[in-house]
Amino acid sequence: MKNMYTDEGSPLYPRLGPYFTDGRRRVDYVLAYQIQKPNSIRRQSSKFSDNNFIRRLRRSMSMRSSRAPLQPKEDPEIAAQKQRTDYHEDDKRFRREEFEENLLETGLELEKDEGSKIPGIGFLKIHAPWDVLCREAEFMKLKMPTKKVYEVKQGSNLVEKIRLFIHKVTTPLHPKVDANRPQSVKSLSHPFSREKQHLLLANGVYTSAYPLHDVISDVVNVVNTIDISLFRKYFGEKVGLYFAWLGVYTQMLIPAAIVGVIVFLYGCATVDDNIPSMEICDPRNNITMCPLCDHACSYWKLVTACGTARASHLFDNPATVFFSIFMALWAVLFMEHWKRRQMRLNYIWDLTGFGEEEEDHNRAEYEFRVMQKTMKQEHSTPKVKPIEILVTFAIVFGVILYRISIKAALHMSNYPVARSNIRATVKTTAAIINLIVIIIMDEIYGAIARWLNTLEVPKTDKSYEERLIFKTFVLKFVNAFTPIVYLAFFRGRLVGRPGNYLYVVGSYRMEECAHAGCLMELCIQLCITMLGKQLIQNNLFEIGIPKLKKLLRRRKSDMEEEVNKSLQRHEKDHILGPFVGLSPEYMEMIIQFGMVTLFVASFPLAPLFALLNNIIEIRLDAKKFVMELRRPIAAKAKDIGIWYNLLRGLSKVAVIVNAFVISFTSDFIPRLVYQYMYSLDGTMHGFVNHTLSYFNVSDFQPGTDPLQPMHLGYKVDVCRYKDYREPPSSSAPYELSKEFWAVLAARLAFVVVFQNVVMLMSDFVDWLIPDIPKDISLQIHKEKILMVELFMKEEQGKRLAARDNHNQDNCTSLPSANQSPAQPRSRPATHAVFWEKKRKEREANVAPVYNM
Amino acid sequence: MKNMYTDEGSPLYPRLGPYFTDGRRRVDYVLAYQIQKPNSIRRQSSKFSDNNFIRRLRRSMSMRSSRAPLQPKEDPEIAAQKQRTDYHEDDKRFRREEFEENLLETGLELEKDEGSKIPGIGFLKIHAPWDVLCREAEFMKLKMPTKKVYEVKQGSNLVEKIRLFIHKVTTPLHPKVDANRPQSVKSLSHPFSREKQHLLLANGVYTSAYPLHDVISDVVNVVNTIDISLFRKYFGEKVGLYFAWLGVYTQMLIPAAIVGVIVFLYGCATVDDNIPSMEICDPRNNITMCPLCDHACSYWKLVTACGTARASHLFDNPATVFFSIFMALWAVLFMEHWKRRQMRLNYIWDLTGFGEEEEDHNRAEYEFRVMQKTMKQEHSTPKVKPIEILVTFAIVFGVILYRISIKAALHMSNYPVARSNIRATVKTTAAIINLIVIIIMDEIYGAIARWLNTLEVPKTDKSYEERLIFKTFVLKFVNAFTPIVYLAFFRGRLVGRPGNYLYVVGSYRMEECAHAGCLMELCIQLCITMLGKQLIQNNLFEIGIPKLKKLLRRRKSDMEEEVNKSLQRHEKDHILGPFVGLSPEYMEMIIQFGMVTLFVASFPLAPLFALLNNIIEIRLDAKKFVMELRRPIAAKAKDIGIWYNLLRGLSKVAVIVNAFVISFTSDFIPRLVYQYMYSLDGTMHGFVNHTLSYFNVSDFQPGTDPLQPMHLGYKVDVCRYKDYREPPSSSAPYELSKEFWAVLAARLAFVVVFQNVVMLMSDFVDWLIPDIPKDISLQIHKEKILMVELFMKEEQGKRLAARDNHNQDNCTSLPSANQSPAQPRSRPATHAVFWEKKRKEREANVAPVYNM
Repeated sequence: MKNMYTDEGSPLYPRLGPYFTDGRRRVDYVLAYQIQKPNSIRRQSSKFSDNNFIRRLRRSMSMRSSRAPLQPKEDPEIAAQKQRTDYHEDDKRFRREEFEENLLETGLELEKDEGSKIPGIGFLKIHAPWDVLCREAEFMKLKMPTKKVYEVKQGSNLVEKIRLFIHKVTTPLHPKVDANRPQSVKSLSHPFSREKQHLLLANGVYTSAYPLHDVISDVVNVVNTIDISLFRKYFGEKVGLYFAWLGVYTQMLIPAAIVGVIVFLYGCATVDDNIPSMEICDPRNNITMCPLCDHACSYWKLVTACGTARASHLFDNPATVFFSIFMALWAVLFMEHWKRRQMRLNYIWDLTGFGEEEEDHNRAEYEFRVMQKTMKQEHSTPKVKPIEILVTFAIVFGVILYRISIKAALHMSNYPVARSNIRATVKTTAAIINLIVIIIMDEIYGAIARWLNTLEVPKTDKSYEERLIFKTFVLKFVNAFTPIVYLAFFRGRLVGRPGNYLYVVGSYRMEECAHAGCLMELCIQLCITMLGKQLIQNNLFEIGIPKLKKLLRRRKSDMEEEVNKSLQRHEKDHILGPFVGLSPEYMEMIIQFGMVTLFVASFPLAPLFALLNNIIEIRLDAKKFVMELRRPIAAKAKDIGIWYNLLRGLSKVAVIVNAFVISFTSDFIPRLVYQYMYSLDGTMHGFVNHTLSYFNVSDFQPGTDPLQPMHLGYKVDVCRYKDYREPPSSSAPYELSKEFWAVLAARLAFVVVFQNVVMLMSDFVDWLIPDIPKDISLQIHKEKILMVELFMKEEQGKRLAARDNHNQDNCTSLPSANQSPAQPRSRPATHAVFWEKKRKEREANVAPVYNM
Repeated sequence: MKNMYTDEGSPLYPRLGPYFTDGRRRVDYVLAYQIQKPNSIRRQSSKFSDNNFIRRLRRSMSMRSSRAPLQPKEDPEIAAQKQRTDYHEDDKRFRREEFEENLLETGLELEKDEGSKIPGIGFLKIHAPWDVLCREAEFMKLKMPTKKVYEVKQGSNLVEKIRLFIHKVTTPLHPKVDANRPQSVKSLSHPFSREKQHLLLANGVYTSAYPLHDVISDVVNVVNTIDISLFRKYFGEKVGLYFAWLGVYTQMLIPAAIVGVIVFLYGCATVDDNIPSMEICDPRNNITMCPLCDHACSYWKLVTACGTARASHLFDNPATVFFSIFMALWAVLFMEHWKRRQMRLNYIWDLTGFGEEEEDHNRAEYEFRVMQKTMKQEHSTPKVKPIEILVTFAIVFGVILYRISIKAALHMSNYPVARSNIRATVKTTAAIINLIVIIIMDEIYGAIARWLNTLEVPKTDKSYEERLIFKTFVLKFVNAFTPIVYLAFFRGRLVGRPGNYLYVVGSYRMEECAHAGCLMELCIQLCITMLGKQLIQNNLFEIGIPKLKKLLRRRKSDMEEEVNKSLQRHEKDHILGPFVGLSPEYMEMIIQFGMVTLFVASFPLAPLFALLNNIIEIRLDAKKFVMELRRPIAAKAKDIGIWYNLLRGLSKVAVIVNAFVISFTSDFIPRLVYQYMYSLDGTMHGFVNHTLSYFNVSDFQPGTDPLQPMHLGYKVDVCRYKDYREPPSSSAPYELSKEFWAVLAARLAFVVVFQNVVMLMSDFVDWLIPDIPKDISLQIHKEKILMVELFMKEEQGKRLAARDNHNQDNCTSLPSANQSPAQPRSRPATHAVFWEKKRKEREANVAPVYNM
């Protein structure tokens, strides 16, 4: 099927490669199956020794091909079932023969290879001759390159130069997208079509089906120069779009990372000017705090929280508010930028007329289910959508409850002595444990999502994929973000107050944070999750495990290294892991996008971490696709589908989450309220004192007062705690004070204002930036006009020829590029024609700039 | 151009009608222009008496044709300019001749009619012969009806029956949409193409251009049976879509109106059980209120606000909270329903392959501007977009400030004596004055928007239209909603407190509302605006003014009634008003949609009023288009364009506005807070007392105490006012109390929760309902499969014929409907074929249900 490319002269498609035995017809596709001995012999031998080998092989085959679900898994120990197995084998062979007959009928050419070096496996090599390709191309309405090429000029204004410079500087950071290269001549190329895989593997008659990799030495090019157009040619549009998306994402992360670093540096620079942390660190203030746990803990001095307070300023300063607004808009800009890039790629790859739904096949399993149903009752397709959704949300809710209770249990009165350095260590350990739990649970949730989806039996391949993605996303997202959400919004909130603490599960007291401690914990958790998850999942799972699997498969096949080297292309590819789709890659990136946007208010370095990861990721992914996995079937795709919606949903959620983080997790609002409502001199002096309420130690409930009341060296009568409550001397002691309500109202007002302002700005940006880049729409328009002119010319020529026969030479010559062909030769320039000409001249001069 | 329809046998397209003098060629299009006498005579006579007549005529013509902006308006008194005029006349005649030549060249056939009964006006009748129509149809990629028709079955399940019943019951309320009628056979029809009007009228050479109405007696059908398919045939898709949209909107208003009435009735039924209004009306409570204005007003008893309090319960009860959530979801459902209906109409009208941008022509004025610019400097298209936007917003902001200050001035200390019945009258009068101001300003703003848009010089017709719509929308919207927003959110908020009132403009005190008075005023304003605006704009502007204009035009033409009756079709149509586009119709409906969704929390009867209005509106609009206006040029359109975005924006804004109305304008949140935080017995008893603060009359500032302190018959020491403030006895008298902050926090929390919950639900509903109706997507799929089969069959036939010549008869017979044609005749049913067959059988049985 790559005959189409052979005459292109591209280094990727040399004439040497896997061919039929005649050395002329290229192998376009390979089907693998288990070899059956001739019927009479197999029936006898199946009871004997080599039966075991075949069975083992068969089982490993069926495990490998994830698409063979209808294949029954019998217990070979029972004779009756063995009989059935034999029947099934016969049946499969029969179906295979039938299928091959059908293939031949459609015009494909076949060659069998049962004497392969991999014992027990037969290969059916398929070649698609030129006329079949042409038929299919016409059928899919593929666009043809016409002889008519036209010049597209590159602009040379200042903006363009700046853009080129930036592009040159950031080149090592992102993959090559051919859209970025100045092209001077455009002509249409042929993307390759997708085989109807569902017909091939549906009944489990064949064990696997794949097109072949090109010769490795050439393929390495793909890895070294990450060029989207090569990816698209080699893997099809769907994979090409993934890499293009990843490229745009990585590119967009650069400004975000820079601004994030600046915000962080601003925090570092201002840490010494920060009055609240100065007040905390000032030993003269000598504030005695109430114990952080019952009985075992004692009173402590606020000055011991100095380190945490200073550290938390790094992440909790006015710049972070700016940064989270920036990131909300960044997310919108990213979506817009991607929409435009996608449009551009659609245009360059000639997908503008391609309808997505044409690729949507019914799934074999669905067919099977429906057939089963229709045997019982007619016309009732399974309608479990709402129930399905309910089950997913029930699981999600259960997960949240479970995780929060685990978190709470982990944190409950674990470390009685409150020393801040020990605390930090403990917290880091807790975060690492959390990370490991997240990674393990990730795999489990993936399995749960698949199980849930098989229950649902979606109708088509596309809806199956989308629903699986959605479920997996919900579960993995909840898994990754539960501890973070807990830390950001619940930890230290529902603790009660001294003398009236909140107890859960009998006598466990909910743990408090030290001064500004919760924010620090959130930062540590985010940092470790981002770094760790990416390191472990990238290196271990994406590289290590496929390597390991390949190794295992090699050993299973009982073959030597030398034999492997002499293997033919289709045998080598058979050893590689199957291509399981792009979902895991996208999923990883989406979760990362969530980390970058959702809690960016509390961790401005997130974009930087993401950027560093992606620069590695894009190269590892490319290597994996080319070297470790079987070549995927080239699939056409106009867009990234459901992932775009998920991204959009995330960037919406990010606005509200950031609003809450700023107003409820950070001290930004209480500081503002203090400064403008309570401060005597309009400065932050006295803020720390203002946020601490008084507690009379005589009001401790029996048995909860500290064991060592003299721990600090003096007798404590009144201790302080962080809350806005009435003092013991008031008429309603320990009630929430007016300050509490005022601060709460301010926090909520901030949420309302922030959310609506950012949403309005996002919508405005969305509305301001056209979805189709101007140069592309101009070019499409221009192509249309060229077509119109050609058409009109022909029409006119015909009519003129009919009227008077001496003008015929006008119609045969095609108008050349950049000439204004609508203008009649010998007629005076009328006004209408003048306008038309003017317009065309202007359009011809508009340079198509190949990026946003 | 309607030859295409003549063989359809529709009563709308009879063979009698306007024809060329040969009685054979139909008049498809008419261009009108001023008649010029032969050059030599005109030059002389232009100085004499009939010159005036021609000038008057010319001026009236140029006024009538809104599309002739380049025509210079000279002062005829100056001779030099007269010379120029003559030159222009010559120039125009020359251009006309050239243009007519061009028309002939494209194959159109022309007939001039300068001896018309309307003096001074010449008509150019245009006929498009069949071959020109065919060329244009091919060119526009119009779909052809193939011989192949296929049956689409109607389902017969319970849901369908219920739907049909509902449809039957509500038939008089909405227009007929052919999509709702069960169709058993579908074939494709020919919509008509749009003339390139911009080429015809651009230079002001012609004064008007229009296609002709059909004979009135037939056209009346269109008015009587409001049938979307007839509209679309007669006016083109764009007008058809407007009526379809109006139909869907009216239909969707039915459930909203019903629920609104139920909510209102719930308010009526519970008015006697409402404890707060009972407490206000109970004379035993005997609460003395502080004066509502300085000096002139005196103390008053709360019991006098009884009527207002009871009335306000009708609009301020828990049911309205439910209703505003309901209406937010209703808006989303409406949008979704319309999207689906639009998709269905696209399918039925065969617009699925039609690209919108093909219709997008550059505007002549833009061309002119660009030419002017390019003469000065090259390559600089006018880029005033951001400035433009700024100017619009500056005007909007100015308008808001102006209106609010006017409102405030109107309300400031106008009626010193606070008697509630007088108040209601005064308020109603104020609302009516407001309404009149709104209507007058509406016209002014329309002119401002047009002026702003001409400044901007948008490039294409479409962008010109969209920007004009956007600007007009912003201005009209602000105009209509400023008084309502003022009443809902500002009135009575910034009044200060007794002893420390807020004074503006020297000594005017901001007016307070009586107990629950602001909400009532809001209701009155909404009610009068909705009723009055619709009545006046519908009846006066939409019907009265066009009638008047027609009358005036008739008198201007100095013709007798009898002459008018003997006029030819094209002369009659010339007297009618020009079609100015659908924008005014849409605009009116969008403003109404805003009324229905934005403040529905305070006026649940709004949907009912809107429904009643629309039932009349849809008929008046239809009559107007057919009888009062020139026939518009049939324009293709796939969707309603920018209006959809405006609707979407409104329904988003509605969520936040309703959240604020419920939490800040109504007493819903204070009641809840009282019940759950302060009430001693968990009931509402004591709520009124709780919301009133105490004021010591000795704290009145000098000169602001009442003139008649003994007005109530006893000496007042302490009066009450509605606010949450500390009593005079507290340590910080008249400061905002803890209750104030608690209620404020609760209000804001409600806004946050309401907004996010409703937005989440909206997105969920949006996601749940597929944009393309299932039956339509199935049908599209089916059509594709039928095409595929036809194609494959032909292909196979060819190959078989090439191989062996005895199978040829297979390929010539087309497969008939409902038969599964893919199954080969004599082959055994293989498994693959079995699956394929099954699928097709199921698909053939799926009934296309012709509505949502």
